[in-house]
Amino acid sequence: MTFHLDIADLHDTALVRRVQHRLDRKTKPLGSLGRLESLALQLALVQGREDPQLHAPQLVVFAADHGIAAQGVSAYPSDVTWQMVENFLAGGAAVSVLARQNHLALTVVDCGVRHDFAPREGLINAKVAAGSADASQGPAMSAAQCEQAMAQGAAVLRDLPGNVLLLGEMGIGNTSAASLLMCRLAGVPLADCVGRGTGLDDAGVARKLAVLQRALQANEAAVAPLDVLASLGGLEIATMTGAVLQAAAQRRLIVVDGFITTAAVAVAAAVAPPVLQRCVFAHASAESGHARWLARLGVQPLLDLGLRLGEGSGAALAWPIIDAACRLLAEMASFESAGVSDAS
Amino acid sequence: MTFHLDIADLHDTALVRRVQHRLDRKTKPLGSLGRLESLALQLALVQGREDPQLHAPQLVVFAADHGIAAQGVSAYPSDVTWQMVENFLAGGAAVSVLARQNHLALTVVDCGVRHDFAPREGLINAKVAAGSADASQGPAMSAAQCEQAMAQGAAVLRDLPGNVLLLGEMGIGNTSAASLLMCRLAGVPLADCVGRGTGLDDAGVARKLAVLQRALQANEAAVAPLDVLASLGGLEIATMTGAVLQAAAQRRLIVVDGFITTAAVAVAAAVAPPVLQRCVFAHASAESGHARWLARLGVQPLLDLGLRLGEGSGAALAWPIIDAACRLLAEMASFESAGVSDAS
Repeated sequence: MTFHLDIADLHDTALVRRVQHRLDRKTKPLGSLGRLESLALQLALVQGREDPQLHAPQLVVFAADHGIAAQGVSAYPSDVTWQMVENFLAGGAAVSVLARQNHLALTVVDCGVRHDFAPREGLINAKVAAGSADASQGPAMSAAQCEQAMAQGAAVLRDLPGNVLLLGEMGIGNTSAASLLMCRLAGVPLADCVGRGTGLDDAGVARKLAVLQRALQANEAAVAPLDVLASLGGLEIATMTGAVLQAAAQRRLIVVDGFITTAAVAVAAAVAPPVLQRCVFAHASAESGHARWLARLGVQPLLDLGLRLGEGSGAALAWPIIDAACRLLAEMASFESAGVSDAS
Repeated sequence: MTFHLDIADLHDTALVRRVQHRLDRKTKPLGSLGRLESLALQLALVQGREDPQLHAPQLVVFAADHGIAAQGVSAYPSDVTWQMVENFLAGGAAVSVLARQNHLALTVVDCGVRHDFAPREGLINAKVAAGSADASQGPAMSAAQCEQAMAQGAAVLRDLPGNVLLLGEMGIGNTSAASLLMCRLAGVPLADCVGRGTGLDDAGVARKLAVLQRALQANEAAVAPLDVLASLGGLEIATMTGAVLQAAAQRRLIVVDGFITTAAVAVAAAVAPPVLQRCVFAHASAESGHARWLARLGVQPLLDLGLRLGEGSGAALAWPIIDAACRLLAEMASFESAGVSDAS
């Protein structure tokens, strides 16, 4: 399976030098805005301009069900996937509240929820199947399903305005899929990739671990990133992977949420490493495994608030900080323009 | 010297239980909003109500000059204090940009800047003197000056609307004052309290340390918190301390910025420990000493972005997260209201 998009490596040392100079002349001690300065530099590189601007940020929640949920890997029943999609659309979920607060357009993509939704403003039908197959018995998706999901993810992105994609997801069972992807893609022992998800107790984690072990065995042959995605991932993760690749090709900024969205980005980056140059990792999730995966990817999350909700909640919470970095670069006065004395 | 305000200890286990129940019924796994849930609980306790609301947040920047700056403890000349006040008012400073972004009312209080400002919208004249005295030679303020500053800080707060105070400050030399307060109040060795401030090199830090050692010797007798404040603090820190005590008495939420605002809060908390119950510590500053002081106070900062700018920049950056906690408590649906299945 292949999926080709041209994703340029962002190298422009002259631009970096110009933006760094601009930051250094702002009315503040050198480097005193810390992480916000490196964020501003990243925004400039992603957009290829000294004065990056963020507009029409899109928070997209990719939703699907997982066959593996039938093995009891989650504290919640699969019906919660569609019920939460209804909750997103009705405005009552955490991500709904945070999107409203931060003026983020919120779109839900049904990538494979086991439920028929009435058409609605804010809901995109990109259903490949009514849930993925049980990965503990064989591949979660066929190659054709995975390709279809990725193509639909790319198409969703092409139709959305703006230059920022904030990633969210919903899918009972999807920490299982993400753990499997982490194990196979990053080469981390399975036990270090598996956590409590939505709230398993110790016995539940042990059961989940055993089920995931079977899934790895049932999909031993999958090694290439997109084969791993099809075999061990899920429909929302595959759709998101396509969306991430498309967003990266368009040089949109990509704001990554928690463990599951990191899985999609990790697959995309395995296919096209420059994807990571466009990504801001919003937070370190409390889901065990996430911090280790971020470290493996060589990236630093912005926030660490003990979140483990998903939905894009962490991405939405990080948004004002990213917006701040952009505004500071654009709007702060320089020592010269403000008539402030520089360091002696 | 005394300064009395009635600051109640916030104990209400019944309220905590009610709010916790409300959080637990929200459509999310138990505890999955992490730090935002403890923030929501704190807001409820501070306001003494199940449905806390944040309105008209006030970012107040307290500015003053420091006699000790003449000893070469800063990388910048004292004139930068008044020049930056002009920059705040003109809208070109980092805190100006962040206040605009976050719809925070920005007020600058001249507590003792060595400059005559033309009256301006957004500038409050509460000047006690044209800068404090050089603490390396004797007390930075007389007891009367310190009391006047505190009373003026309280008065400024009484006149401001809203129920949230975000703290900011400006004053060349004020990391020196804060280091001295930390050393004397928290009993931490001076070397562990002194950092690079706005950007001293190693030789500069050594010189600063020697000057501050002399200041401790010159003010050996000061032990009681307000005597320490007068002897080793500064006019903006004393004014801020009065404002913090007043805000706490009014049960406003207090958002603490970096190292210098922590100094004012530490003095206020030494006088009235329940002050800390009203405080959210916005971030861990890159100024060495700050993280250690927060640990001594037994508090956890929200952000860690390598900031060391002051002005209230960290407080402004943390504001959307605090606002989010409040909105999530108010606006999220419950399992019952949204018709979502709970964990099995």
